[in-house]
Amino acid sequence: MENSADAWILTIGNEIINGVITDTNRESIARELRSVGIPIKGMSSVGDDPAAIADALRTAMENTIVTIVSGGLGPTEDDKTAASAASFLGVPMRLDQEQLTRIEERFRNWNRPMAPINSKQAYFPEPAVAIPNDYGTAPGFMIEKDGRLALFFPGVPRELVRMLRERAIPIILGKVGPAKKSFATRTLHIYGLSESKLQEILADVSADEEDYHLAFLPRFPIIRLRMDAGAVSAEEAHRKLDEKQKVLIDRLPENILSDDGGLMENVVLQLLQERGLTLALAESITGGMIGEMITRVPGSSQTFMGSIVSYSNNMKSGILGVTQQTLNKHGAVSHACAREMATGARSVGKADVGLSVTGIAGPDGGTAEKPVGTFFIGLATDQITLTRGFVLPGTREWIRTLGAMQALDLLRRHLLGYRIHGQEEGNEPQNDAWT
Amino acid sequence: MENSADAWILTIGNEIINGVITDTNRESIARELRSVGIPIKGMSSVGDDPAAIADALRTAMENTIVTIVSGGLGPTEDDKTAASAASFLGVPMRLDQEQLTRIEERFRNWNRPMAPINSKQAYFPEPAVAIPNDYGTAPGFMIEKDGRLALFFPGVPRELVRMLRERAIPIILGKVGPAKKSFATRTLHIYGLSESKLQEILADVSADEEDYHLAFLPRFPIIRLRMDAGAVSAEEAHRKLDEKQKVLIDRLPENILSDDGGLMENVVLQLLQERGLTLALAESITGGMIGEMITRVPGSSQTFMGSIVSYSNNMKSGILGVTQQTLNKHGAVSHACAREMATGARSVGKADVGLSVTGIAGPDGGTAEKPVGTFFIGLATDQITLTRGFVLPGTREWIRTLGAMQALDLLRRHLLGYRIHGQEEGNEPQNDAWT
Repeated sequence: MENSADAWILTIGNEIINGVITDTNRESIARELRSVGIPIKGMSSVGDDPAAIADALRTAMENTIVTIVSGGLGPTEDDKTAASAASFLGVPMRLDQEQLTRIEERFRNWNRPMAPINSKQAYFPEPAVAIPNDYGTAPGFMIEKDGRLALFFPGVPRELVRMLRERAIPIILGKVGPAKKSFATRTLHIYGLSESKLQEILADVSADEEDYHLAFLPRFPIIRLRMDAGAVSAEEAHRKLDEKQKVLIDRLPENILSDDGGLMENVVLQLLQERGLTLALAESITGGMIGEMITRVPGSSQTFMGSIVSYSNNMKSGILGVTQQTLNKHGAVSHACAREMATGARSVGKADVGLSVTGIAGPDGGTAEKPVGTFFIGLATDQITLTRGFVLPGTREWIRTLGAMQALDLLRRHLLGYRIHGQEEGNEPQNDAWT
Repeated sequence: MENSADAWILTIGNEIINGVITDTNRESIARELRSVGIPIKGMSSVGDDPAAIADALRTAMENTIVTIVSGGLGPTEDDKTAASAASFLGVPMRLDQEQLTRIEERFRNWNRPMAPINSKQAYFPEPAVAIPNDYGTAPGFMIEKDGRLALFFPGVPRELVRMLRERAIPIILGKVGPAKKSFATRTLHIYGLSESKLQEILADVSADEEDYHLAFLPRFPIIRLRMDAGAVSAEEAHRKLDEKQKVLIDRLPENILSDDGGLMENVVLQLLQERGLTLALAESITGGMIGEMITRVPGSSQTFMGSIVSYSNNMKSGILGVTQQTLNKHGAVSHACAREMATGARSVGKADVGLSVTGIAGPDGGTAEKPVGTFFIGLATDQITLTRGFVLPGTREWIRTLGAMQALDLLRRHLLGYRIHGQEEGNEPQNDAWT
């Protein structure tokens, strides 16, 4: 029989309600449960206070079939969750000999003495069923009341998620029956469009359907499009995602970076590798950010020769060969300088492709003609040399990040044969990206 | 009269309960309230569902004097918070003409047309008092029931925090009276010690006292030590923090980077500026990360000349002048190469100080002699040239980040006249940092 279980997530700890830590367990638990078809009805958090824990547990168990509790199972005085659950049920605590043995073994394996206090972690409310912890010392446990379940886990994220996935979800599904539906999810990374522009383009294909939801998740300067689909089987849910993705590709032929979580640097590096090309950079405004991004990728040293971070004009002319005439006549922030930086990087890096960026990140240094946010990108290969200019708003951090991303996107677009955005030399600024 | 108000935080949104976003508003709200002496009793979250919102609001207002609600005040169909609050109170919605005018003005200032849908954001439960939003379109509002307050805010973190601090907290304190106690908080940034080592050093001075709490907040590779103190006045609370800080400085004379949130790059840049020194870098393993960090700081161009990101050996020898003999005999990851990179950076950058780092970030490229995690740092000034070596564990990202931080910390230690960590040329590896 299919279940209609829903769930409540209760996280416990003074550090949570005092705002000292960011509680990410809630989202992890929500994702695990939703992936097996159990929707979340609500969440709550209370401190390490027995009365508050019992109250919150009562509210949660009255509201939903399954309550997942995390936190407060440690060995110290502050950890009051298990005792609070026992007093909520009106039962005493009991020692679980099997779990105690596991804890003792764990310390022996670590070659560390076990403090007497750690045996506290083997005590549970009398009728509870233990949930072994294969990744840490604190076991979890499950209680039942009036046909409702509550499962308790330690607050350590890594332990919690694995225990939930490997140990607890099979128990839950055994109790409440298999899920009505399977869910599948896929995330597209979009670059080069503002959120409002993206919403406009997708207005007629982004509405919720019974078993389909498209979420816009901006993580500057990327927008992630997360598709969620439900169907009678996982296979069917993936088929639905394939169909939906086709529509999105059709609307956004040039702006989808990846459908597998691949970031700009991964995508550009792969395009270079596929074409057997090497890359050298000349960075000014970005201060090394593009090189840092590229070298996050293991194995990038086969493709990436290096970067001249020419922050001073002396380094622009001395190493990259930017001419004194260009610096005097056009300035370091110009089409001409970007062009000479790109050809210089290609030459001193002995690379197939030279890519450069120079600009004004602010807060100071802007002029009427070249306000803060002005930057120029240069690209040089054995075939072409081109430059593009942009004036983009934002903070210093924002402008630098966009400078790096626009430079890599220009290279991506060049390698894929797409239209290249931005202001060309001799033309008025005309930013068609980020509108 | 002093108040004994406590608070509940309620966040609203399907994205929250579905685990799609990390809800950081809860901690921000908790910190703001605690800073004015209002403790948090609990937190909860529900989706954009009117019945669930009303239920959660009832529970919160029954439990505490002040409820802070965030989310669900946007212009779309999905945003149901205001209407749910009205139905919880059993009152109709009304249009607030003043707030509507503010929203219209905001769009005029942006030169953007206002969609009719946006006027929805000026509707509140009939008896509610509006809380203007100076930073976005959605105003907040406050309701009262049985002497309890509930204040509603948009879910945008930046708007929420400022509205709460500037507009709402004065209203709350006006209603509930001044806080019993004043709280003050200060955060020290610690570098170069593992969390367990730091806990060991501070074991006898880190226990909770009645009105003092020391929290260890690791944010790799920094550990933040957050001191919280309460006293009869803000002045008294700060005096208590001064005393506690003296003890910490005494225990950690070399490892406290800052007590004002200053990061490694800010600290090093300031030390250079105070001494009138310029800096040039030669980066290999870090790929540009150190340059990127330094140039985050506005005005860094006065001090920072640039970085040669010499990922290829060709760039190490061609630009920095690392000798072929060094590359052949010692390899690119060696004391000798780090030394020549540092002197080369100083020379081509025409800088007072040259700083270099070269190493093996992995996952491939390690050998028995030089495993993944091996890196060397070089420092060259007009007085000295020195190198240090390290072998540190971790992922590629971790090793690169430590490489950048260790290089900047070596420069910091040099400028402050502290002992320099790491393995010296000719000696066996002996890492006394990060133990």
